[in-house]
Amino acid sequence: MTLSADQASTALPADAPSADLSPETVPDAVAAVGQLADRARVASRVLARADRNRKDHALVSIAGALDEGRADVIAANAKDLEREAAAGTGAALLDRLRLDDARVDGLIAALHELAGLPDPVGTVLRGQTLPNGLRLRQVHVPMGVVGAIYEARPNVTVDIAGLALKSGNAVLLRGGSAAAETNKALLALVRGALEAAGFPADAVQSVDPWGRAGATALMAARGKVDVLIPRGGRSLIQSVVTNATVPVIETGEGNVHIYLDESADAADAVAILLNAKTQRPSVCNTVETLLIHPKAAAAVDVLTALAGAGVRLHTDERAAALVPGVATVPATEEDWATEYMDLDLAVRVVDGLDAAMEHIRAWSTGHTEAILTNDLANAERFIAEVDSAAVIVNASTRFTDGGQLGLGAEVGISTQKMHARGPMGLRELTTTKWIVQGDGHVRS
Amino acid sequence: MTLSADQASTALPADAPSADLSPETVPDAVAAVGQLADRARVASRVLARADRNRKDHALVSIAGALDEGRADVIAANAKDLEREAAAGTGAALLDRLRLDDARVDGLIAALHELAGLPDPVGTVLRGQTLPNGLRLRQVHVPMGVVGAIYEARPNVTVDIAGLALKSGNAVLLRGGSAAAETNKALLALVRGALEAAGFPADAVQSVDPWGRAGATALMAARGKVDVLIPRGGRSLIQSVVTNATVPVIETGEGNVHIYLDESADAADAVAILLNAKTQRPSVCNTVETLLIHPKAAAAVDVLTALAGAGVRLHTDERAAALVPGVATVPATEEDWATEYMDLDLAVRVVDGLDAAMEHIRAWSTGHTEAILTNDLANAERFIAEVDSAAVIVNASTRFTDGGQLGLGAEVGISTQKMHARGPMGLRELTTTKWIVQGDGHVRS
Repeated sequence: MTLSADQASTALPADAPSADLSPETVPDAVAAVGQLADRARVASRVLARADRNRKDHALVSIAGALDEGRADVIAANAKDLEREAAAGTGAALLDRLRLDDARVDGLIAALHELAGLPDPVGTVLRGQTLPNGLRLRQVHVPMGVVGAIYEARPNVTVDIAGLALKSGNAVLLRGGSAAAETNKALLALVRGALEAAGFPADAVQSVDPWGRAGATALMAARGKVDVLIPRGGRSLIQSVVTNATVPVIETGEGNVHIYLDESADAADAVAILLNAKTQRPSVCNTVETLLIHPKAAAAVDVLTALAGAGVRLHTDERAAALVPGVATVPATEEDWATEYMDLDLAVRVVDGLDAAMEHIRAWSTGHTEAILTNDLANAERFIAEVDSAAVIVNASTRFTDGGQLGLGAEVGISTQKMHARGPMGLRELTTTKWIVQGDGHVRS
Repeated sequence: MTLSADQASTALPADAPSADLSPETVPDAVAAVGQLADRARVASRVLARADRNRKDHALVSIAGALDEGRADVIAANAKDLEREAAAGTGAALLDRLRLDDARVDGLIAALHELAGLPDPVGTVLRGQTLPNGLRLRQVHVPMGVVGAIYEARPNVTVDIAGLALKSGNAVLLRGGSAAAETNKALLALVRGALEAAGFPADAVQSVDPWGRAGATALMAARGKVDVLIPRGGRSLIQSVVTNATVPVIETGEGNVHIYLDESADAADAVAILLNAKTQRPSVCNTVETLLIHPKAAAAVDVLTALAGAGVRLHTDERAAALVPGVATVPATEEDWATEYMDLDLAVRVVDGLDAAMEHIRAWSTGHTEAILTNDLANAERFIAEVDSAAVIVNASTRFTDGGQLGLGAEVGISTQKMHARGPMGLRELTTTKWIVQGDGHVRS
């Protein structure tokens, strides 16, 4: 530990960071989260000034701790799984909750990959010398204290801790009661590894001991927490967006459309639709609605191939009529709104590009939309007029992903327009600072 | 008008944009603001695709309309002034409310200047071709619909309308009851000029007819309004930040510090302090607290010069002892927290750089802090460790200003970390869109 000088220079009592903070010592969640956030702020100052080498070393140290401690983590996870199974939790949720050897290996690999990525901190966004000689630069700096609210996905604990560390931020976690034992074990490993690497353990803390009240206090900690990232299902995200006074980055919901234009290549269209719908139906960049030009030559091939791959087609009358030999379900307006996240696809025949874009404007969540076409003017109009985070021409919607787009690790996919839009990488966990240097300059 | 094709392609009835919308036809503010926002969205699509030449032409057209219609505007303003004066409004507020010939000239000049600035829309932020051949680019695009809430500053009506137009956004305004007549006259001129230039008038609308309920509905129009910018005093901004579900960009509050280090040049320090405190004390980038190294050679000169310029010095004991011949007011903790916005300055002697930064951490609003020093290591530490939107070395804090920093027109000065930090120019009124182009690419 070489950090005591910085820690000593804060308003907190010198012994505060190591003092016990628990519901027993501080029962009030608002007070407790305030104190956790203050500790995180102190830790964030150390992280903000750490160079990349030190941060990468700590990431590798966390990966090592995870490898050595995997038995403890998996044992803790077994307790969570047992309790949740007994409580009647469904198979899909239990699967999300599970941490086995392979998944721990995945987390370790991700930490090593993160260590290999460039550091966004210190990057100069723009700079110039003004006519009066003032030297200006706008530099990426860490946010400070990031909050993360997620549910029953213990992998997010390690994931977010790593992303926050690499981008120089301290983090407050709310991981949910279903994964309580697993997250406790993971947190102990991460904090130990941070300290071993010379960083304050308080760079990664959890509000979970205070339960729902802790989550509520985290959402209300405006001024103490710089940004809040919810990760999870629709109801979780909407609850955070509606209730938080801390600025939120909304992530995830993807009611994704593909428009099959008249001139689309049939073989490409079949390959893209199969990829976009069946490769991983449960994620947000999977296609949910296919819009078809009345004369699209590729339509029959596409629908037949999808049905053959086990996709349930929810069709309007005109779409059903294209493939009389294929079993389809009649679509209602609800289908246009539904993010199935399963082997289901809404299918509608529309009267061309304008009608397709009108449907998209009415039903899209602004995540990703694609056009399959060989018509240049239509491709250009689709790019210009569709108002989504990602607009794709002749490729699968599954590419809307930080890793696929070359951003490195992904924090989430923002569906809002402020701060970050689309896949969020490390850079989106930073803010900027203007640095102005003069020689006695005054404003005239 | 060449825009009917776009307008016809929306979900609104074809005649909606020209139908009357008023508290008489739609008394419910939530419903009315929803309809205004829908009209703004339709208009925003036209603006988003307009090239720079068309937008600049419209800005010049608004400037011309303002010039021709200035008598009407000034007459309307006289009514507001008369009513507010009769209601006992103070001189400072009345001055802010006043629009005279000179101020109208200022608005006209600002519109012409805006027309001369580069267009942020279409700028490519980053781009590459991936190893698999996918072509990527992340491009600046307009937000869509911007909301602005301000009070008794009718110049903001024209200012925000111009900034929104140039950045391709539609705008919903809430200008407050004190300026109701002035804003109504300005809005009519702006909307007429927009239509004359071939743009939909609904690019600029006001919720003022629905009063406070309109403002509340605007803050709650999440999903219909993309971003909300409050401009005004602390209570206005805090009210918007606390109550809005629409994402807010917090602007303005500046409890600005200058730290006078031991090695600062005395002549430079005197010039900078006089500039930072007395040039325009009522704005957010004026200095409010001076922190002094116990051995700062420049201290006596600086304090004497400030007192000589009529600045009331609120000093701690050590600072008062530096200038026994100067009348000072004893400072309390409240002075460290106060944004005077007047010819008042809090002054404190601190035990060096660490103590100065500790004071700043405790009291700063994160707007602007400056260090005056000739010590390179201290300058570097100040730059690295002070967590504010702008960190300045050896220059006046008055430079934290979009115009001064070369950003062109200024939307406001953000004191938050998300999306925009520090002076916000046109670019900060845009978001981005990922454009992905392939040739049948699927994800493996």
